[in-house]
Amino acid sequence: MSDKAEMADVQSMPDDREIEIDKVGVKNVKYPIIVLDKVNSIQNTIATIDMYVNLPHHHKGTHMSRFVEILHENKNMINMKNFPEILKELKNRLDAESSHMIIRFPYFIKKEAPISKTQSYMEYQCGIWGSMDNDDIMKEFVVSISAPINTLCPCSKEISRYGAHNQRGVAKVDLKVKKFFWIEDIINIIEKCASSDIYSILKREDEKYITERAFENPKFVEDVVRDIADMLSQDANVRWFAVEAENFESIHNHSAYAYLERNN
Amino acid sequence: MSDKAEMADVQSMPDDREIEIDKVGVKNVKYPIIVLDKVNSIQNTIATIDMYVNLPHHHKGTHMSRFVEILHENKNMINMKNFPEILKELKNRLDAESSHMIIRFPYFIKKEAPISKTQSYMEYQCGIWGSMDNDDIMKEFVVSISAPINTLCPCSKEISRYGAHNQRGVAKVDLKVKKFFWIEDIINIIEKCASSDIYSILKREDEKYITERAFENPKFVEDVVRDIADMLSQDANVRWFAVEAENFESIHNHSAYAYLERNN
Amino acid sequence: MSDKAEMADVQSMPDDREIEIDKVGVKNVKYPIIVLDKVNSIQNTIATIDMYVNLPHHHKGTHMSRFVEILHENKNMINMKNFPEILKELKNRLDAESSHMIIRFPYFIKKEAPISKTQSYMEYQCGIWGSMDNDDIMKEFVVSISAPINTLCPCSKEISRYGAHNQRGVAKVDLKVKKFFWIEDIINIIEKCASSDIYSILKREDEKYITERAFENPKFVEDVVRDIADMLSQDANVRWFAVEAENFESIHNHSAYAYLERNN
Amino acid sequence: MSDKAEMADVQSMPDDREIEIDKVGVKNVKYPIIVLDKVNSIQNTIATIDMYVNLPHHHKGTHMSRFVEILHENKNMINMKNFPEILKELKNRLDAESSHMIIRFPYFIKKEAPISKTQSYMEYQCGIWGSMDNDDIMKEFVVSISAPINTLCPCSKEISRYGAHNQRGVAKVDLKVKKFFWIEDIINIIEKCASSDIYSILKREDEKYITERAFENPKFVEDVVRDIADMLSQDANVRWFAVEAENFESIHNHSAYAYLERNN
Repeated sequence: MSDKAEMADVQSMPDDREIEIDKVGVKNVKYPIIVLDKVNSIQNTIATIDMYVNLPHHHKGTHMSRFVEILHENKNMINMKNFPEILKELKNRLDAESSHMIIRFPYFIKKEAPISKTQSYMEYQCGIWGSMDNDDIMKEFVVSISAPINTLCPCSKEISRYGAHNQRGVAKVDLKVKKFFWIEDIINIIEKCASSDIYSILKREDEKYITERAFENPKFVEDVVRDIADMLSQDANVRWFAVEAENFESIHNHSAYAYLERNN
Repeated sequence: MSDKAEMADVQSMPDDREIEIDKVGVKNVKYPIIVLDKVNSIQNTIATIDMYVNLPHHHKGTHMSRFVEILHENKNMINMKNFPEILKELKNRLDAESSHMIIRFPYFIKKEAPISKTQSYMEYQCGIWGSMDNDDIMKEFVVSISAPINTLCPCSKEISRYGAHNQRGVAKVDLKVKKFFWIEDIINIIEKCASSDIYSILKREDEKYITERAFENPKFVEDVVRDIADMLSQDANVRWFAVEAENFESIHNHSAYAYLERNN
Repeated sequence: MSDKAEMADVQSMPDDREIEIDKVGVKNVKYPIIVLDKVNSIQNTIATIDMYVNLPHHHKGTHMSRFVEILHENKNMINMKNFPEILKELKNRLDAESSHMIIRFPYFIKKEAPISKTQSYMEYQCGIWGSMDNDDIMKEFVVSISAPINTLCPCSKEISRYGAHNQRGVAKVDLKVKKFFWIEDIINIIEKCASSDIYSILKREDEKYITERAFENPKFVEDVVRDIADMLSQDANVRWFAVEAENFESIHNHSAYAYLERNN
Repeated sequence: MSDKAEMADVQSMPDDREIEIDKVGVKNVKYPIIVLDKVNSIQNTIATIDMYVNLPHHHKGTHMSRFVEILHENKNMINMKNFPEILKELKNRLDAESSHMIIRFPYFIKKEAPISKTQSYMEYQCGIWGSMDNDDIMKEFVVSISAPINTLCPCSKEISRYGAHNQRGVAKVDLKVKKFFWIEDIINIIEKCASSDIYSILKREDEKYITERAFENPKFVEDVVRDIADMLSQDANVRWFAVEAENFESIHNHSAYAYLERNN
């Protein structure tokens, strides 16, 4: 092989297998991003990002470098508001008929301990994913929010002379909505539906409060998803939701799990 | 609280929130299982298992202990053949209208190096998942098989004076089929569609063979999924398939990815 | 480049940087192995294996294929008894002055629930690592055993009117011993030192028993490591040990952790 | 149990097992932190943090809430410069004789593609850990920096008629130094010692450049660690270093690995 004066564009060459590809692109890109924050207006975080487009049957390959270029040119701003714009740009720049993006990122909220009011940051795993079709309308658009929680077993409390097993769990809500909402408000709902919410710093008076609150408020994973579903079903902004709860059981080495999804 | 002469069955208590739960059960159970092996008839492996049933709106909770009991009573045998029976038992024992199970397990195959014929074991990640409805008919039943592969970039080869970047990748096939098939046969298809398959032991003559074979056989992730799709679409036993390929790019710190699904 | 009649042995070429390499070899090899089992004499499991040797400054590279060959030729048997033999073979076959191996594997034990006596398998993470020097004597030889446990917080119990937060934790013991011992016996020690041990299947009567036992038996991570240390320091077979305990706190999203090591 | 007017301080109670604990504290705390950045003076990132102190044999437990309090009061600033101060505060606030902290965080650097000069961010995994003894002097203080790299196999190139297998790898440097240094400078050294460094965006002219550069510059993991060691041994600021390189081999499903450590 000799040096080429003009480099071949292998990706743009014709393909005769006649097989369209549903999604092609980059996966697991780690990138610093800036998201919207209810209290501080913006928050710096780090996302794991997948970006895809469809590939018509007559093209051999897609142009992988353009995906991260779009991310970078957007000055790392990604959020519920500009997500559709990015998907549109993706579709246009890659000359595609559909585009898809999934971002996952930790989101931090400053939280006060219930009695001592000591402040600390709590981490919540969030995500946004969406797809756009040829008509530039979002085909799917989901925001996903997880919160670590405490759950205390109603059965264990009921049958035991004292105590009740409890554990860390995580509850996750996926939402299709009508208009923008704040992550903080959904976390608030999730935490209210647990036996107790959890914190990064707890002084002794807080620990007493949380222990007693959880004991007064036993919840199966089944209760957690039902209580969250109950609140979300009354939210006029929510068109569809899925709720799941997973307990890292303290008496087993596996999880208890519940899931439901509903149209509002 | 005092000791109870008779223990309350809290899970069976009525629930008035009127919210049915789609899936409730155990998640991330690690269990030794025995699967079917084309050469040795059976293979011992270790599975990660999720088992769920639906929960009618009038019941407060499910009975978590029965899930793992079913696993254990089945003498750890789980495979494509008895999967429907386990789902049926799950549904019956939990008094439910639908049941779901997902198992994921590593599967080992003894493989010969291409020239030296040196033998070693290769690990392939496999999975089976399925759902059963009230009529005892499988609603969904998918077998999933992944194989690590080598892919050499056609663009890099074409535009460079010498060499071409290549990397480890993984290709995954999900299948809905008409009747039982051997995992080995699907792995065989996947490995044929890569730039080269990969091995646990390679002597120098094998390394030369694989290097040259990959260079003669450049493939984008797009090519890998199309070639696998081409072969699966000619398999009369396959009713539906999804194929994905992910390259752990050697020139990037992220993956290139392609996905397609088709009805046959 | 043309086809070579005789293939160069690049690894054996001289190196003039005058830098000896402490460890070189293969890492993260997944292989089916057979370990010793107190009840069933042997157990099939799957190991993640690292194997290294030193590389004198005058050699350019090591011969990577020989590492997995030794594994395979050994018919997948690896255990405390033949570990030194494998290290010796590694050193000899790679023409090295020192050799190192680390294996990690899940080990399953059939366990009876405390009251109902229902049987199920529990998974314990185990490991063996060792190094051999030029004199064929083991320089380091450590067996590592982890067990998932339940811990109930003594502070939470003391300060609260009712209940006490508890959680899943994991306790790990690393041991240097004089002669062979059974993994089962160390797991037994670890489980006795927790607020309660944990199970894959628990019926209601078992859940009551475990809830009450944990409440009667509160333990900080500090208590867990001290109680295990107390028992190990009385074991004449143990020359050195390290103990760690990690609680996946049910009131925090991080762990509480304690560690100590001692010569006996 | 009745409500306590004054809450017992269980952790401060005496302990009669006479066993000192080497390390006790919090593990796996996720916290937003601010680190120093050569170009932008500071960088927002997210750390995973472990903080421990020793616990004298006569105390039952440590006070877990104070660890994260110190983090928070420090306004999330953690870096090589204030690390000793945090360790000192940890020791004092917990009334201990030794303190330990480990932080791990992703660090992003804006990087230009070699020919097209297209800009994008690259992620590098970094860490700092240290211990302080009773005399307020750092007993151990290590900065750890990882960079993803491309490595092309010298043996494969030599024995094959064309091509050479190459793959993504990662090289890690651990350093004990005399005075502050910039993470960027060590990344620069690591990337020079690979077959090629890697990027988040590469246009076709960059891909050609990197493919050819890697082919002209074949490296075993052995070569990577030796070349890095060679450069670090000439750095007067470095008192001790450890270097490791791991290749995610493109012809195997396991890694090739090399490690060495030296006093300068």
